[in-house]
Amino acid sequence: MSRAITKRMQNVKPSAVREILKVTADPSFISFAAGNPSSELFPLDALREYTARVLANPASLQYSVTEGYPELRELVGERYGKGYGLSKPGDDIIIVSGGQQGIDLAAHCLLEEGDAVICENPSFIGALNCFRTYNAELVGIPCDEYGMEIDKLEAALEANPRVKLIYTIPTFQNPGGTTLPLERRLRMLELAVKYDVMILEDSPYFELSFDGTITPAIKSFDDSGHVIFAGSFSKIIAPGIRVGFVIAPDWLTSKMTVAKQGADVHTNGVFMRVAAEFLRGYDVTAHVERCRKLYREKCGLMLTEMDAKIDKRVRWTKPGGGLFIWCELPADKPSAGLCETLKLQKVAVVPGVAFDTDPDNLANYGFRLNFSVPSKEQIVTGINLLAKGIDDYLAV
Amino acid sequence: MSRAITKRMQNVKPSAVREILKVTADPSFISFAAGNPSSELFPLDALREYTARVLANPASLQYSVTEGYPELRELVGERYGKGYGLSKPGDDIIIVSGGQQGIDLAAHCLLEEGDAVICENPSFIGALNCFRTYNAELVGIPCDEYGMEIDKLEAALEANPRVKLIYTIPTFQNPGGTTLPLERRLRMLELAVKYDVMILEDSPYFELSFDGTITPAIKSFDDSGHVIFAGSFSKIIAPGIRVGFVIAPDWLTSKMTVAKQGADVHTNGVFMRVAAEFLRGYDVTAHVERCRKLYREKCGLMLTEMDAKIDKRVRWTKPGGGLFIWCELPADKPSAGLCETLKLQKVAVVPGVAFDTDPDNLANYGFRLNFSVPSKEQIVTGINLLAKGIDDYLAV
Repeated sequence: MSRAITKRMQNVKPSAVREILKVTADPSFISFAAGNPSSELFPLDALREYTARVLANPASLQYSVTEGYPELRELVGERYGKGYGLSKPGDDIIIVSGGQQGIDLAAHCLLEEGDAVICENPSFIGALNCFRTYNAELVGIPCDEYGMEIDKLEAALEANPRVKLIYTIPTFQNPGGTTLPLERRLRMLELAVKYDVMILEDSPYFELSFDGTITPAIKSFDDSGHVIFAGSFSKIIAPGIRVGFVIAPDWLTSKMTVAKQGADVHTNGVFMRVAAEFLRGYDVTAHVERCRKLYREKCGLMLTEMDAKIDKRVRWTKPGGGLFIWCELPADKPSAGLCETLKLQKVAVVPGVAFDTDPDNLANYGFRLNFSVPSKEQIVTGINLLAKGIDDYLAV
Repeated sequence: MSRAITKRMQNVKPSAVREILKVTADPSFISFAAGNPSSELFPLDALREYTARVLANPASLQYSVTEGYPELRELVGERYGKGYGLSKPGDDIIIVSGGQQGIDLAAHCLLEEGDAVICENPSFIGALNCFRTYNAELVGIPCDEYGMEIDKLEAALEANPRVKLIYTIPTFQNPGGTTLPLERRLRMLELAVKYDVMILEDSPYFELSFDGTITPAIKSFDDSGHVIFAGSFSKIIAPGIRVGFVIAPDWLTSKMTVAKQGADVHTNGVFMRVAAEFLRGYDVTAHVERCRKLYREKCGLMLTEMDAKIDKRVRWTKPGGGLFIWCELPADKPSAGLCETLKLQKVAVVPGVAFDTDPDNLANYGFRLNFSVPSKEQIVTGINLLAKGIDDYLAV
């Protein structure tokens, strides 16, 4: 019967990242392969208090409206819509089951089979695989240390009349760790308007800025209704609650709501209310500051260790925030081989092919390092092991 | 830009049921329009205790594996897989974000655009709309007081070579309140094997049997890998937690897992663990017995009142469990008009067109009554008002 599987699902493989996570469940491994925020930052006391408060009201356990718990939508409107300038006239806000669902619902509403999606190459595997499950063609644009090379974006738009969507993680990109400068953001928006395609701005990390600097979202400049903003509470509350939001023109959010009715009816009712309690009653700004501080320290330590120990032929990004550093071996050294070598050192990284718009590009020579999950001790030990593994691999 | 919406999403309307629920938020209305379990049955103390216990472990707040919390999968395997005979060799179990997501993932993996889905007519609007968002053709099979008329199923399979899926709610159907007899279940399975199509057996209500009788699931007879069983904790714990499960052949669950990675990464981690606590530590059987008793009383009361008060030209089903009674006006009296008349009486029911495989069939003369949500007093008062509204409507 397996021939019954739709064409769009036949060729999508499980995320390589998630496969690697299974390997690194072995506690003797040092893992730089994660994509999680650090558990030590979870606001546990507040989560417990708010959850107990929310459960006092049985309404939190009934079916809810698909668009999301009304008070949470309002509070997202205040913090993100007004506070960060993300809501524009004609926009609406819906609550989704994590930022991932925002991507999925946008794809369901916008991508016909065979349509093309432009994205950074490399990019977030969860989004790339999601687009693949709609049989979309992925058009990857190369990235430099600032993110997408915008001069190549126009050529791609010109060459691909079936482009419907530009998918971008402009701030602290996954896996790149890069932040798209203001002028490139404005240029991307200009091109989206010119070619009349939508931008899906996926921005789960933007508040995790090491020095507090926040480059304004592409969405904040858009008066033409071409930008969908996907946000998440995964990195500032916790990912396990699966609560995120989308701010987009209402002709699209209304259709995304219909798609969400069919997808999961509504997001977990208890944690929509818990997220509302956070935005209303918790000092979110102070909490974000704690996250920034820890990640700044961990990333700084990792970069210092890398500078001191890793072969100079390897290059890497210097993130201003987020969770990831992107490294590149010399171009003739595929990173998949390095990852095998590293298994002997019991250290794990994610090979770049996992984030490549071509999932069979075994020549990919990049790899991703996560600094949010390992302890500082693990960072020091692990970078030593990584440096040794790289030396071994480059010597072959 | 709204022309950018995919063809498959352009013609799907928001669920009429959910629109009606907005109207009936007015507390002076008596609503028989709901689809919820009764809030008075939520096991609140246990939910609070288990949630607090689960939140003591920060792992519940991190990213989880897409297939679902391993212990919950095992416990579902014990209670449903073994206990109800739903797991077969070659099957696997995945946890989903409510039964609705089971439907959506199956559709994503099995339905090419233009494929056909056979379903009961009337059927659950959330499933019908979900199939519509994949541009599937709906082939409705008429129902009698026992559910799908199986002699018409073979004709439909013969006439529609693009049928990929038979969607059925065999037990305490929504909206029909009907239960498909054993011999029809066996015949349906036989036909699925003969025509090599899958059956999606959606069974969120089957434990809510008034007298404890449970007709064995179609899945329990399937040794050929043709049945997908979608189950839910919405009716025996609470719907707001959005936790359900799918038991299906592993060639399909593995693809559904890939689709779920793209859809929401995983189901809410806290409530997957809470559901596991329930299955492990709570007397679920005694709790289900409490649900059965209350619904038996409410349904019995509603049927008694209906027998005494409602015009004999109206016919209705006598459910053996679940949440719904299906009524039919004389065939020349569309129910949409009745619903308008009932607004004057401040009583709400859902018109049959909402559940029709043809969403524009304004001639539909059925309507759905819910008995789980209204109080016994509301049932008595509301059936009086309904009877009066029907008298007024039939007199026109």
